[in-house]
Amino acid sequence: MKNKNFYNNKLKIKTRIMKAYPMLKWAKELFPLCRSITGNGTRETLNYFKTINKEFKILKFKTGKKVFDWVIPQEWNIKDAYIEHESKKRFAEFKKCNLHIVNYSEPINKKISKKELLKHIHTDKKLPDAIPYVTSYYKRNWGFCLSQKQKKKLPKGKYKVVIDSEFKKGSLDMIHAILKGKSKKEIFFSTHVCHPSMANNELSGPVLLNAVLKYVKENYPNNTFSYRFVMHPETVGSIAYIFKHKNELKKNIICGINLSTVGDERAYTTVHSPQENTLADQALKAALIGKKNVINHSFLERGSDERQYCAPGIELPVCGFSRSKDYPEYHTNKDDFKVVTEKGLQDSFIVVKTIIDAFELGLYPHTRVLCEPNLGKRNLYPQISKKENYKDEDIKVRTDLIAYANGKNNIFYISNLLNVPLSKICKEYSLLKSKKVLK
Amino acid sequence: MKNKNFYNNKLKIKTRIMKAYPMLKWAKELFPLCRSITGNGTRETLNYFKTINKEFKILKFKTGKKVFDWVIPQEWNIKDAYIEHESKKRFAEFKKCNLHIVNYSEPINKKISKKELLKHIHTDKKLPDAIPYVTSYYKRNWGFCLSQKQKKKLPKGKYKVVIDSEFKKGSLDMIHAILKGKSKKEIFFSTHVCHPSMANNELSGPVLLNAVLKYVKENYPNNTFSYRFVMHPETVGSIAYIFKHKNELKKNIICGINLSTVGDERAYTTVHSPQENTLADQALKAALIGKKNVINHSFLERGSDERQYCAPGIELPVCGFSRSKDYPEYHTNKDDFKVVTEKGLQDSFIVVKTIIDAFELGLYPHTRVLCEPNLGKRNLYPQISKKENYKDEDIKVRTDLIAYANGKNNIFYISNLLNVPLSKICKEYSLLKSKKVLK
Amino acid sequence: MKNKNFYNNKLKIKTRIMKAYPMLKWAKELFPLCRSITGNGTRETLNYFKTINKEFKILKFKTGKKVFDWVIPQEWNIKDAYIEHESKKRFAEFKKCNLHIVNYSEPINKKISKKELLKHIHTDKKLPDAIPYVTSYYKRNWGFCLSQKQKKKLPKGKYKVVIDSEFKKGSLDMIHAILKGKSKKEIFFSTHVCHPSMANNELSGPVLLNAVLKYVKENYPNNTFSYRFVMHPETVGSIAYIFKHKNELKKNIICGINLSTVGDERAYTTVHSPQENTLADQALKAALIGKKNVINHSFLERGSDERQYCAPGIELPVCGFSRSKDYPEYHTNKDDFKVVTEKGLQDSFIVVKTIIDAFELGLYPHTRVLCEPNLGKRNLYPQISKKENYKDEDIKVRTDLIAYANGKNNIFYISNLLNVPLSKICKEYSLLKSKKVLK
Repeated sequence: MKNKNFYNNKLKIKTRIMKAYPMLKWAKELFPLCRSITGNGTRETLNYFKTINKEFKILKFKTGKKVFDWVIPQEWNIKDAYIEHESKKRFAEFKKCNLHIVNYSEPINKKISKKELLKHIHTDKKLPDAIPYVTSYYKRNWGFCLSQKQKKKLPKGKYKVVIDSEFKKGSLDMIHAILKGKSKKEIFFSTHVCHPSMANNELSGPVLLNAVLKYVKENYPNNTFSYRFVMHPETVGSIAYIFKHKNELKKNIICGINLSTVGDERAYTTVHSPQENTLADQALKAALIGKKNVINHSFLERGSDERQYCAPGIELPVCGFSRSKDYPEYHTNKDDFKVVTEKGLQDSFIVVKTIIDAFELGLYPHTRVLCEPNLGKRNLYPQISKKENYKDEDIKVRTDLIAYANGKNNIFYISNLLNVPLSKICKEYSLLKSKKVLK
Repeated sequence: MKNKNFYNNKLKIKTRIMKAYPMLKWAKELFPLCRSITGNGTRETLNYFKTINKEFKILKFKTGKKVFDWVIPQEWNIKDAYIEHESKKRFAEFKKCNLHIVNYSEPINKKISKKELLKHIHTDKKLPDAIPYVTSYYKRNWGFCLSQKQKKKLPKGKYKVVIDSEFKKGSLDMIHAILKGKSKKEIFFSTHVCHPSMANNELSGPVLLNAVLKYVKENYPNNTFSYRFVMHPETVGSIAYIFKHKNELKKNIICGINLSTVGDERAYTTVHSPQENTLADQALKAALIGKKNVINHSFLERGSDERQYCAPGIELPVCGFSRSKDYPEYHTNKDDFKVVTEKGLQDSFIVVKTIIDAFELGLYPHTRVLCEPNLGKRNLYPQISKKENYKDEDIKVRTDLIAYANGKNNIFYISNLLNVPLSKICKEYSLLKSKKVLK
Repeated sequence: MKNKNFYNNKLKIKTRIMKAYPMLKWAKELFPLCRSITGNGTRETLNYFKTINKEFKILKFKTGKKVFDWVIPQEWNIKDAYIEHESKKRFAEFKKCNLHIVNYSEPINKKISKKELLKHIHTDKKLPDAIPYVTSYYKRNWGFCLSQKQKKKLPKGKYKVVIDSEFKKGSLDMIHAILKGKSKKEIFFSTHVCHPSMANNELSGPVLLNAVLKYVKENYPNNTFSYRFVMHPETVGSIAYIFKHKNELKKNIICGINLSTVGDERAYTTVHSPQENTLADQALKAALIGKKNVINHSFLERGSDERQYCAPGIELPVCGFSRSKDYPEYHTNKDDFKVVTEKGLQDSFIVVKTIIDAFELGLYPHTRVLCEPNLGKRNLYPQISKKENYKDEDIKVRTDLIAYANGKNNIFYISNLLNVPLSKICKEYSLLKSKKVLK
């Protein structure tokens, strides 16, 4: 019966999450846009989220601006592109799939031989059916991406290649939101907005980040900690953001998580910080206790914007959180809503939610009494002491939590030490706070 | 021949220990008393030990006194108790076994149905022959404990239940002794006195503690370290003791061991402190090197008064030491002198004795010379250097001890690092002190 | 093709090393001399190296001088020795093999019975064919060393034993050289010169040390770090050296390696310092990544002069480096040029050379930019970003090195963390310095 209740309860939570934070719906609406590190597709995506969370503010970095070792590139926009055989048959049509065009391709409109064309065709070596995602942001180039099968079917003869793209002085855009708390210490979430029509490696991160922002503001109106949410193009975007905010980030962030590819159901993956034991490392580890298929990577397996947040001299306490990290569909048109699911997004949401709940419940559980409290008089322990009572699991977590609640061990450390899921620790902590045993 | 000598030597030691510290005899004499957290049984037990070690002083905590989160309960005494069937046949007679009555039962004398009676009967779920030990200190209740077999044999019909117990304002008593040394730094031993007629989980701890006290005062009249010995009812007793002595305990104790269930021969068990690397942790680990069936538990497996000594805000360097910790006879009338043996007690004594010997020999071995000493000229190393001499085991321990005797590594740390039993380290250290190599 | 180039390149390096540092030639020339902890054989050996590296200075410690717990013994020299049977047949002739005579034997010339003679004969218990190496430096004694087979063949009858040795007041000699650098911080190399005609356990260490000294002075005329090279008799020699230089050694040495038995091809063995994590420990570990048959010993397996350098109160950051440490031929006449080879010596040289290269290249790699550098614009990263580029191994080392180059992680730590051979790290570091990415 216990299992049945649990299951019903789960169902309710899932429905509640779906109504309050329709992540999959958002992702599907945004899927068609052709995003890049600059340009209108990204701008529209950011505006969409600004409608959901009005706390977001736009930040613009002008073309040509130097941010550390990098220069903000020209803004790139594209209207159309295709390959046309002399028979007028078209291939690699932008309007059918925006991955067909190498992102940041320069404009072109000319006739070329098939031999010449093939030099500009990219395929995925491993997936014969997949159109790969290729970019050339910092060196002028052009190209088309086809599946191996599509490439093989290109007929002999002459071709016209058309890419109706445009470079211009403009800006690289991003948005961020800060929810101020009683403490200036910040919990930080970052994700990237720059990939075109892919589901996991793009839209899962932004929709989760928006759900989390919404969760915090709606559930913790008197939040203890401050929260910072950032969405920017990967790499150059996070570098620009750090360039502008380095001092406040270094001063305030105590726990940061970079969200990337968080929409599938296959695994729970973390990329630890170089220090390996920051609050972020401990928090993610604690929140994933008991989950199936948890993969802990060291910083040597970094991949997304944690690369910048943890770089030498920046060294923020930031981890990467993903579901699958290396998955077959990665960076191809196969990364779609077969990969990303409602359940995948929701389970990721629950992980992050649990971490936030723990922070707001109390980072450093502290007993209110010296020596063990008398739990019996509070109905937290059986009043008759006999052998079979000693091994009760709930009571074990309860007494263990108290035993380590010295005000110096943080809640994530305790969860990991006890090897008890963070959510279970939070539940007991909450009970013990209400009973005036812990503060 | 070496083995034979060793064996003879062992025999002598055992006999010597038995004469000087007749632990089993003490335990057997004290076995029948009905102890509890208060009352005459416990008082008599404490007085018995006060006769053996006159250094003990009595401490009394009055009924109603608040000690941290607890209140000293009323004193409980019991004269008789039994269940009487309408046929006059009696069951669960206190005078046959004091475990038959739930400890701290309120007085009762009335006729009840069998159905009503059964609600107050406790059995051990796993051992059909065993009478379990049950208490209800902090909630008024009454009950009887039977073996499953005894319970089954209760005839149909009416019963009279009689518990001739009494609650009154009185005191919770305990004793402690302090042997002052040249240093105020204390080695601390604690055990509990509150369980009725059980051998391992009660009397083994008190008799060992008394043997140890006797050993220290008789063998180290000029002791370097101070020693503190405490005997009190478990939980509320240690809490009361800490309540009264917190500051001096926190200031002085550098190594504490809680002795509980130390009389059997089945294993050597430690419960480590939360810090896991205090002198107590290191000392116990070193003293158990080479023993069979050593079990090291983390603080998550705590069970006895180390729970209080290591609680948040108290955080003393205290470990638990037991032989078996979870044994089938635990908290039943089967915990008798089939479980506790002379050899079991003596082997436990030797563990504690070795730790004390090490402290008094010198906590931080320190070489008297820089670079390696010339051992050959002191007849501590062969004068002819040839290949087969290089591997001698005694010489290996000797040179290794010197190599780490930098005055910063403590003797327990060195023993653990070398993985050589503490007693062997002490023997070599003693030799090297006499030869002026170490100090 | 890559493999072929690599192989050719290797050949070239090997030839270059052989020409610049003819270690095997030096060892063979010095092999016949009868070295000991004092006397002319050792003196000649030291003078030989002084010719190769004129930076060496001679240090003399007079007979009778107290050095810590030891006294410099009388100087010992030997001209001839043998056992002569009454048949005039001679055995154990010094002139055939100087290991036949117990090193530091007192002079003797008398007739004795075979029974008496046998008391003074030493053999190797394990190798029936081998003449063992035996010494008696600090207790007057005499003796001969034979193979088991030779001993068995000694005929019945009377014998004359002749040892034409001499003790006199004199000195214990050693040499050292210091190459001053911009920093006073020293990289330290020590080896011993005291064993008679054995190849690995004697001459491999001295010839390697001399090759290293020559390498440093010829390749780093503007060396950043200072370098100290010492050659002395084992044990009493290193003790005397430390006695005289303790303060400057403790002040300046940041990484020391004791070289002993470094001429064979069988393994790579380190003896770690007691601290286990000094620069020396990290450096050796990093330089041995990817080698076959690497054996890491703790300080408990110390054997050579690291015993003195790491002794309590000295505690320098020194490790032992050997190829084989416990090899069958050890301390017998079988330790010859079947054990020590050109390739063995050169591979040891390359290990030490790599460590020196790393120190001179830069102990603490430090990025010149915040966040990740733009490697593409420096041609250090592919300009087209597609999936299959992400896993390139060279680029992985490059970006990983940058990711940890925070100016606090030393180059050896990074090599060990990445589990990439130190030489490969140095190559990338060198490239990234030239491209102004790291400093």
